[in-house]
Amino acid sequence: MAEAVRHDKTARQLRLLSDALDSGRLGPVRRLVNTLAPAEIGNLLESLPPDRRMVVWGLVDPEDDGEVLVHVGDEVRESLIADMDPDELVAAVEDLDIDDLADLVEDLPEAVTGQILRSMDRENRERLEQVLSYEEDTAGRLMNPDVVTVRADTTVDVVLRYLRLRGELPEHTDHLYVVNRRHQLIGWVALQDLVTCEPGRPINKLIDDELESIHVDTPAPEVARRFSDNDWVSAPVVDDSNTLLGRITVDDVIDIIREQAEHRALGAAGLDEDEDLFSPVWRAMRRRLVWLFVNLCTAFVAANVVGQFEDTIDQLVALAVLMPMVAGLGGNAGTQVLALMVRGIALGQVGASNIGTLLWKELRVALLNGLLMGAVLGLVVLVWFRSPSLSVVIFIALTCNLLLAALSGVLIPVTLKRLGFDPALASGIFLTAITDSMGFFTFLGLATVILLR
Amino acid sequence: MAEAVRHDKTARQLRLLSDALDSGRLGPVRRLVNTLAPAEIGNLLESLPPDRRMVVWGLVDPEDDGEVLVHVGDEVRESLIADMDPDELVAAVEDLDIDDLADLVEDLPEAVTGQILRSMDRENRERLEQVLSYEEDTAGRLMNPDVVTVRADTTVDVVLRYLRLRGELPEHTDHLYVVNRRHQLIGWVALQDLVTCEPGRPINKLIDDELESIHVDTPAPEVARRFSDNDWVSAPVVDDSNTLLGRITVDDVIDIIREQAEHRALGAAGLDEDEDLFSPVWRAMRRRLVWLFVNLCTAFVAANVVGQFEDTIDQLVALAVLMPMVAGLGGNAGTQVLALMVRGIALGQVGASNIGTLLWKELRVALLNGLLMGAVLGLVVLVWFRSPSLSVVIFIALTCNLLLAALSGVLIPVTLKRLGFDPALASGIFLTAITDSMGFFTFLGLATVILLR
Repeated sequence: MAEAVRHDKTARQLRLLSDALDSGRLGPVRRLVNTLAPAEIGNLLESLPPDRRMVVWGLVDPEDDGEVLVHVGDEVRESLIADMDPDELVAAVEDLDIDDLADLVEDLPEAVTGQILRSMDRENRERLEQVLSYEEDTAGRLMNPDVVTVRADTTVDVVLRYLRLRGELPEHTDHLYVVNRRHQLIGWVALQDLVTCEPGRPINKLIDDELESIHVDTPAPEVARRFSDNDWVSAPVVDDSNTLLGRITVDDVIDIIREQAEHRALGAAGLDEDEDLFSPVWRAMRRRLVWLFVNLCTAFVAANVVGQFEDTIDQLVALAVLMPMVAGLGGNAGTQVLALMVRGIALGQVGASNIGTLLWKELRVALLNGLLMGAVLGLVVLVWFRSPSLSVVIFIALTCNLLLAALSGVLIPVTLKRLGFDPALASGIFLTAITDSMGFFTFLGLATVILLR
Repeated sequence: MAEAVRHDKTARQLRLLSDALDSGRLGPVRRLVNTLAPAEIGNLLESLPPDRRMVVWGLVDPEDDGEVLVHVGDEVRESLIADMDPDELVAAVEDLDIDDLADLVEDLPEAVTGQILRSMDRENRERLEQVLSYEEDTAGRLMNPDVVTVRADTTVDVVLRYLRLRGELPEHTDHLYVVNRRHQLIGWVALQDLVTCEPGRPINKLIDDELESIHVDTPAPEVARRFSDNDWVSAPVVDDSNTLLGRITVDDVIDIIREQAEHRALGAAGLDEDEDLFSPVWRAMRRRLVWLFVNLCTAFVAANVVGQFEDTIDQLVALAVLMPMVAGLGGNAGTQVLALMVRGIALGQVGASNIGTLLWKELRVALLNGLLMGAVLGLVVLVWFRSPSLSVVIFIALTCNLLLAALSGVLIPVTLKRLGFDPALASGIFLTAITDSMGFFTFLGLATVILLR
């Protein structure tokens, strides 16, 4: 699927905004910003350099402040919060939904958190404390305790009358939950069914008994997977005793899926998905250094391998010209295997039962690719350096390195996963460490044995 | 956010299924498979090697066949379709929603497509033909023409009575669309509002006039962005004259977001997101070869750079040991910048108005990192090879290569995007081509000038 090329709304807004800011007239900027949804404002703020970001932040309708804070990355959020005084902050966040407030609370100054807790009524305070008692990135943290429940021993028209009395429903209410006296979940009734069946129908005839609920400890990625597998708009969250605690809605699930994708894409380069595009230089530098130093260390290992063969290279400089190719192509081939495996693991498609079959398939692919690429490379080397034995050496070395790359590409992520690490993050470093070092070793080792006999 | 480690439902199912298949008793396999949602069955089929996949596919309840086909990647889909005879296929897909059918139709044998079109009533056939007339990956292809419309000049109780007469609503109906006589979209009414307000209320008092609609030509990624920015469950699709054509639902949007993420993750390694984990070896090999050959070509360019300095290396073999480090670290640093930029471009956060600021920031980060990493590397080289001038050479070369990496990391994706290419796919190859070649050139060139004077 191609990225959007036309209809690039955010980029267009950015240009308009940038022109308006350049002109120094803030009226048009304010009007432009406040036609946007909070998530769009968040996106826009993230795309502005710090000085302009603060100007625009000051122009956002205070009513939207809280929602905007929910929709920006941690680092940008910190900078926006630092710009607000405690009263403004309290006003901005106190009307948020409990799940959004729980998401924000850890980034707020303690004084503000205290003030917010004091300004809440007891019921909401207890709800917030309950949500905060669950681990981050679990269903408990994602749920909103605000649910509409009904009893099974009633009829559709009674429920409709109750809803009219109750007034506005929580956002994305597509089901009412049927509970017993002890607030245990029995099933759910679709709002759609309530409006299409006869008013006299008993509720217990409408209950969907195929209901699946989400346990409060379920990790966020598993929540996302179940939503997308079952096409849910909302789903109930329960505890061990099947007591209804709250519900999760699809808009939060979309956020999880986006975050997961960013985490994987940026994490593979050693970055945090909350990184601000315009981080202060010192902060950006410090964060990237860690990853570069890890890479420096693996590079030293590879350099050390080359160092062992200084005498060989000294006798045949062509080896120095060719060795990065063997290492690099191994890394590329391994990266392909790795990409497939990391996806498979994330989808739960790779496990003990099929890892053997996968490895066997990848080794055969690598062998064929190695023989073919090796033959091409060997031919070019023959023409370039006119040495048949050098040709043979690079042919064998490349084939071996592609086989090793396939082996590493399959086994590294599976091993990391089994050890409890996130395979999406660290696999790449290990893989290139192996394909570089072993690529140099095979090529230079073979050269030493075959060419310098 | 950590990937799911516990509660790994798919992996557990896979193990159970695998054990059951091993035991050869197909009864338990069938029961296990048919407790799953179609998307889960699809996921399971994708994680099985071809022989087992076909056994399990034969056990899936024929009623679910169509939905399962919708939920698997193109390559797996082809293999499943090849296993069915035309009558089975027609039976499987004829009850699908129009949008799902449109998604499948191109993978079906022509004879089957003809048979399906003949078996449809005229209205549905025309709807399908209309959906198929829009370009792939646009709103027109994603929409389902099945919508519930009401008139503005009526009241809530009339609408409720109409809904009761009509019976079952299309899935995920959270809004009814208000249209005029010419089927032009005027606004929408939330189902939630219908059940909470008094029955006598006129519909035109309930219309949400802040409604945004989606133009039928909007590209899929833009559709996804607007859904997630506005927390929609469904949204209306209109043409140039604002005529209501259909609606898009959030479950399709989740699929788009997932596909985009996979496209980005696998595309960066030159793979297709529809690649089957268990592709036949020949097919997998052919597909990966293209990417490896492109990398082979850029590697030749880099090797050629090294080849220009054979004399220099001949005089100082330490250069061969160290040159991969300069090139590799440049590639790593550039990849970090690239990851940030590709995300920024995908979110529409990067454009002409801020590219200068971004470049300036990244160059400063690269300078600081270069000076620091260069100093460390220089010190190690001093201890290792006891040559102060070699130390200075690698210090300068690394700093230059990190600066170049930052420049490339910012400019390559922006340029590709402007030229109409997908920056997520090709940027990496160009970047490492530059950091490798120029890393070698700077390091070996400086060494030639400074060390061999």
